[in-house]
This record gives sequence, C-alpha cells and structure tokens, in this order.
Amino acid sequence: MSMSRTSGTRERLVIVGGDATGMSAASQARRMRGPEELEIVAFERGHFSSFSACGIPYWVGGDVAERDQLIARSPEEHRERGIDLRMRTEVTELDVAAGRVRARDLESGAEEWTSYDQLVIATGARPIRPPLPGVDAPGVHGVQTLDDGQALIDTLARTHGRRAVVVGAGYIGVEMAEALIKRGYEVTVVNRGPEPMATLDPDMGRLVHEAMEGLGITMVNDAEVTKVLTGEDGRVRAVATEDAEYPADVVVLGIGVRPETALAKAAGLPLGDYGGLLTDQAMRVRGYENVWAGGDCVEVLDLVSGRRRHIALGTHANKHGQVIGANVGGGYATFPGVVGTAVSKVCDLEIARTGLREKDARRAGLQFETVTIESTSRAGYYPDAAPMKVKMLAERRTGRLLGVQIVGREGAGKRVDIAAVALTARMTVEQMTTLDLGYAPPFSPVWDPVLVAARKAVTAVRLRG
Amino acid sequence: MSMSRTSGTRERLVIVGGDATGMSAASQARRMRGPEELEIVAFERGHFSSFSACGIPYWVGGDVAERDQLIARSPEEHRERGIDLRMRTEVTELDVAAGRVRARDLESGAEEWTSYDQLVIATGARPIRPPLPGVDAPGVHGVQTLDDGQALIDTLARTHGRRAVVVGAGYIGVEMAEALIKRGYEVTVVNRGPEPMATLDPDMGRLVHEAMEGLGITMVNDAEVTKVLTGEDGRVRAVATEDAEYPADVVVLGIGVRPETALAKAAGLPLGDYGGLLTDQAMRVRGYENVWAGGDCVEVLDLVSGRRRHIALGTHANKHGQVIGANVGGGYATFPGVVGTAVSKVCDLEIARTGLREKDARRAGLQFETVTIESTSRAGYYPDAAPMKVKMLAERRTGRLLGVQIVGREGAGKRVDIAAVALTARMTVEQMTTLDLGYAPPFSPVWDPVLVAARKAVTAVRLRG
Repeated sequence: MSMSRTSGTRERLVIVGGDATGMSAASQARRMRGPEELEIVAFERGHFSSFSACGIPYWVGGDVAERDQLIARSPEEHRERGIDLRMRTEVTELDVAAGRVRARDLESGAEEWTSYDQLVIATGARPIRPPLPGVDAPGVHGVQTLDDGQALIDTLARTHGRRAVVVGAGYIGVEMAEALIKRGYEVTVVNRGPEPMATLDPDMGRLVHEAMEGLGITMVNDAEVTKVLTGEDGRVRAVATEDAEYPADVVVLGIGVRPETALAKAAGLPLGDYGGLLTDQAMRVRGYENVWAGGDCVEVLDLVSGRRRHIALGTHANKHGQVIGANVGGGYATFPGVVGTAVSKVCDLEIARTGLREKDARRAGLQFETVTIESTSRAGYYPDAAPMKVKMLAERRTGRLLGVQIVGREGAGKRVDIAAVALTARMTVEQMTTLDLGYAPPFSPVWDPVLVAARKAVTAVRLRG
Repeated sequence: MSMSRTSGTRERLVIVGGDATGMSAASQARRMRGPEELEIVAFERGHFSSFSACGIPYWVGGDVAERDQLIARSPEEHRERGIDLRMRTEVTELDVAAGRVRARDLESGAEEWTSYDQLVIATGARPIRPPLPGVDAPGVHGVQTLDDGQALIDTLARTHGRRAVVVGAGYIGVEMAEALIKRGYEVTVVNRGPEPMATLDPDMGRLVHEAMEGLGITMVNDAEVTKVLTGEDGRVRAVATEDAEYPADVVVLGIGVRPETALAKAAGLPLGDYGGLLTDQAMRVRGYENVWAGGDCVEVLDLVSGRRRHIALGTHANKHGQVIGANVGGGYATFPGVVGTAVSKVCDLEIARTGLREKDARRAGLQFETVTIESTSRAGYYPDAAPMKVKMLAERRTGRLLGVQIVGREGAGKRVDIAAVALTARMTVEQMTTLDLGYAPPFSPVWDPVLVAARKAVTAVRLRG
C-alpha cells in the first residue's frame, strides 16, 4: 500500500460521493484543517449534493413543497467553504496501490486521474431493481435520488391515473403508500413477506397491516411480483404476481437497497457478507491506513447481536461522515456501532423498532423471552391518549434487554429512543423498571409504556429462570 | 424494635395512606400473597383512593371532563381484591415499638389501635400554604386533592370573575395557569424566583417566561406575596406583593409541597434534610425491619449528584409502591434512585429537565461545561417542525453527562428520556454522540437535537480540558 503526497505538506483528501457521509466528512475535516493544510476534492455523479433521500416520500406526498428544501447544502455552499465539489463527475476506478482515483466528467466524457493522500469512499447504496419483464417501462419509479423523486412527481402530474402499486412494504414502501394516498391514489402494496415491515416481527407487522387497510390501502402479502405489464403506449398498466394482476397507472419500487461497492470491490477492498465495506471503529477501511468509508456503502456492527449488518439510514451516514472528518482532520472519533433503531409512519400510525427481532436473537444464538403490552401515549384520561403496543425481548437468565418494537399513534414512535439508549448501555429489563422517565399526564401514563413492558419482561425472565 | 404478629402464620400489612404508593404496595403484595397468608388493612383520611393528583390541572382546565376519570381504582375495587381499605379514617399515631397504629374514623370520631406485622407509610406531601393574612379566604385554593380540585371548579363556576392569580411558577403553577387560560381567565402568575420553572436554570426559565407572556399570561417575577386582600363579602379580591396589588377573583396556590411526616417524626423515625423519611433501596425505613415508606413522604437518592432530594411525583410514588409490595410479598425489588426527570407543558410549550442544573452541579462540587443549542423536533423541511432549545451540562474532563433541560414545542418534552437513560447509565457526552436514536423526517432532524447538544458539549469539554 502506498501513500502518495501531492505537494509539500499540503495533503489532498479525495471524496467519492457528495451526499451525507462524503460532505459531512468534508465539512468536518475543513472545520479542523484549513485549505492551506488540506485540499478537499469531492466527486459526485448526480445533480445534487447533501440531500435528504429520506425526505423524498414527503416531497412526493406534498408535505414538502419544494425539492430544494431537501438539499441541506448546495454545491455552491460547499465550494464557498473551500471544498472542491465536482458535480456530475463519476469516479470510475479506485487505484489504492497508487493512491489515485479516475473520474469522468459526465457532461464532456473527459476522464482524469486525481491522486489522494486520504480517500473517503461514500458511494452509498443502490436500490434493488429486480430483473423483471417490464420493470424499465415508463411509469415505474424508484425513489432513491432527487432525480427519481422529480421523475415520479412529473409522472403523477402528467398521468391522470388513480391507481398506484407499491412494490415492497418496508420503510420506503409504507412511506410511499402514505404519499400516494395523500395524492389521492388508490394504493395497493405488494409485499413478499407475510406482513409489512419485515424489520418487525410478524405479530407486530400484522398491526401495521391492519392499520394500512384501515387507511384504505390494499395490502397483498406473501406475493412475489413476476412482471410489470405494459399497455399499447408502452407505459405500465399493471403489476402481476403468480396469482393475480393489480392495475397500476404508476408503480413505485421500494424493495430496499444494497451497498454500492462495485468500485471498492474492483479495487480489492474488503467487503462483508452483505457486500458492504468493512471498516474499523474509526471508519477506516480494514487494512488501509488512508482509506475511509461510511454511510450506506459500509457494514456496521450491531452492538446487540455482535454481528455485522447493512443499514442504509441517513442518520448513520451523517455520523460516519462526522467521524471520518474528525479523524482525517487530525482529531479522534469513533463509531462503535448501531443497535438497529428505526422509526417510520404511515399516516398517523407510528412504527418503531430497535435491537433484535425474534429471528435475529435466534440467529445470534440467544435464548430470550418476549412480552407484548398495550398502553397509551398519554395518561388514559388525557385527551388524545392514543393506544400503543410495545413488544420487548429480554435475554433469558440475564434479563438483558434485546429489542423493542412499537406500533401506535402519535407519541409512540420516538419512545423507542428509551430502549435504544438502554440497549447501548446493555441494561437489563429489571434495571429499566426504575428508569426515571418524564411523566406528566399529557406526555405519559404514570408508568410509561416502555416501563410497563419492562415490568412484564422481568416477570417472564424470572418465571422461566 | 419489636415485631408483633397477629395470629398464627397470617401476617397483617397495615398501610397509612390510600393513594399511589399505599395502594400500589397493597395491590402488588396481594398479587404475591393471598388473603389466607396476608391481611391488608389500608387507612385513608380522604374521600378518594388511588387518584391522579397530577391530573387535577387538566380537570380544572376542562381537558378531563369528569373527576372520576382521575381515579385509577375506587375503594370498592380495592376491597374486591381483598384489601381492607378504610376511607375517611385518619391514622393519628404510629407506635413502632408495639407495632401498632391508632386510627380515627373521621365520621364517628371513634379511635382504635390496629397492630401490624408490616407497616407502609405512604402519607404523601402537604402543599405549602404560607401563613399570609387572608390566605384562608374563600376563593383561595390549593390543588392537592380531588376535594381541592372540586372546590376550585365550584368556585370558578359560581363566581363570574375573569381574573385569576396563580402564586408560584413551578409545575403546578404553570399547569394551573394553562388551565385558567383555558377557562377564559386573565391570568397573572406571581413568582418568587427570577424566572418561572425554578427546576430549570434561569436562562431556560426565561424561555418559559417569554412563551407564557406570548400566551397572554402576565408574569410577575422576583415578587413575594405579602397578603391576600379580601372584599366586603370576605372573598378574595386581590393578591398583594411589596410593590403592587393584583386583582383576583380567584387565587390558586401552587407553591410546592413538603413531605407529610408529622406522624413519622412523632414516632421517632429517621427524617432527612427536607423532612422526608429516609429509606434503604428496598424502601425500608432505615433501622426498621418491618416499616416501609415511599412516595411523596420520602427522600430519594439523586443518582447524578449522590445527594438526597425530595421529589413529589406520581411516577416515583407508583414505583415505590410496587417495590414495597414486592418486598412485603416475599419477593425482591429495589428503587435505586432518581435522576430528576420532569416534564410539563403550558399550552403548546413543552418543558423538560433531568439531572443537575448549574447550581445543583456546583452544590455537588462538580466542575462542568454548559452548552445550549437550537434545533427542531422534526426535519427542518417537514411540516410543523417546531423549534426547541436543549441545554446540556457535562462534567469537566470526564465528559460525563450531568443534566439536560429542554424547552420547545410539540415533540420536545419527551426527548428528555434519552438523557434520563443516559444519566442512569452514566454515559459521557462523547458516548452520546453516536447513540442510535430513531430518525425519520417526521420524527427528528438527521441529528436529533439531543445529539446536537452532545456534540457541542464534547467540544466544550475538550477545549477546556
């Protein structure tokens, strides 16, 4: 492995990917080292930098009026901060032996090599696009980039259809179902699993299923899409499974994403079981002193199971960028791992999870007890006290908290943070029963629902011994 | 110290006070030991058992329609569970040497002694009622019991006044200010301290002050009430301070409470600096094998400062009761202490705190850094993203989290739970920066406001060294 210096004592940091991780790393490094010390060059193949992909469903649904609201910082703003951000420029090769990257200007087609002292790989993830007949037909949309979002919005504005099919019932799937409901569509969600939200156990996913049906969404579970059918105009007209056809004026693919690591793989960098880059806790690519990676293109340690996972989530991507920037900037920071927290909503139903599902715990070789309780977000007598269910997993004998899933109405979702912190601290459910959580009738019953679940879990762990 | 048995192997548990702690203890003990093993006698001097005092402001304000909604379990329901709950019966003496209590039937005036094997003291707190001229005039109300609440509601219905003065600007004061605003009153809050909510540092209390004024509430700070002025009819007509008079058709006292421990003191039981009973972690009164105490009449350990405090809060009272009941019932449970979490609201302003204020930290001999940040409850581009301020205290050098204060709109208050759990786990602000909290645009910015504060606190701790 070589270290290539550019000139004198000034180092060059090259960043591949101008979104959350890449530009957070750039900004943090710039805060710590000025342009005379550190040159920062960032390549972004798309039209936008630092945008919130997580916000796309709300833009499509009309909650967010303008695309530009989703852009945290424009290329110009980055450049004003002394970051040489080159838009529409795609890195086509990483040469880690020589310490350089090859990039192509997507407008002119010109290619050139740029050497680096420090390299950040922040190539993100790409949506899974199944190789189905008809999947590339007009009217079939992904929602990964702002360009994707704009294309979908244009389709919705142009066509006068009323029927939408969403393929996939994970976070993107349910959020897009909500967005399309808000746009006045009849929405069908076709889902491969037994229940929506496979990041929950099926018994909790069932609650999401019922709530979605209550919103008028048609849920089709245990169904694999076999093809996309097109009309005479070549546009999508239906989605077919083995058993049925679902008419569609527009189709949204929300099947999930995979790490975008083709460049890294070609360069011989270490990848894990999910195809994500492997890093140490400082977010340095394993075995490479001056190559860093973070965001949707890496695998992260699950602190509860001790296993690596791939989680594409803006909040992790930002944290990785901040850690990388601090380290490249001469400081020290680490990202120890995740506990697997996620929160989402479909209309007024809030869905949250952290830690291990039953199958994760089994896979990790853990024995556990599960409990589920019903409670309310506020004191039962307070107006708008909304029902919520909390499922909790605790390790057998030790009583260590393993996971929490919450489905409920307003005020339910962010309660998952209580469990997220408790998981990080490796608390037992017994310890949790006396947590000093905020109580007042407008905010919680006298026993917060998470504490009610913890109490029941204590009993379950004790009974089984 | 003696242990008095009643008959054979059947023990008698006597409980003084039929509210949260007492009846939680009774219920938990009953769950673990049936009537053939354990007789449970509970004395309550008031008209109601197991009611939510915290709910009174919302009943007065009209959010809660019926008094009985605030009653978690009626005397009859307790009796059906095999608990001999004697209402309107006041314990007048504790004889811990002989293991008996003397109780007076407040209807008949009859007194009798009842022996116990186990005693639970759950006498609660009494509101501070300053010995001011006129303080007992008709129209001056406390809000400690359901009877108090009913009397206030009756006054509000009967009088046709429009001006209310609330004395005190703590939780009860601000909640009552909201209630009276909702009833259409012009509300003046007279507050002894420099800003409302003395459980916050004054800089954060200032935000509450401004928000209350924005709601049309007149805030009078740094003002001591000197007397209550009455009219010719003997009813309250104004509240006077040294500097001014504030016309009032009704006055609400929300000055705070003190532990109700006169009986315990007379019996020679150990009291702390705040007049509350001292217990061990099992909630057993120090030095007494078979005397237990919990709720508003005890002092609790502050896990952050290591000092004892008096905190009157229903959620602690319930936990204490559950712990006592488990221990009396032959199980084992402890209440390790509190971190000082509290949450409240005045109209749509949410106010929360946990851990130490600046003056608490100084009193505990700790050196610390403070930071304050502004952020929003949701992603900035998401509808109804509401501003919030987070103040964070971290110990110098170690970076240990010491406290958090939050003032903001919807979604702000319960975020204090993140800090409450982190305090319990003795996390550093550095550890907090990578907490895996729930993120999605409707729930949080990509960096949760608590994480933004933690990041800034890390920098402050590092700079100072």
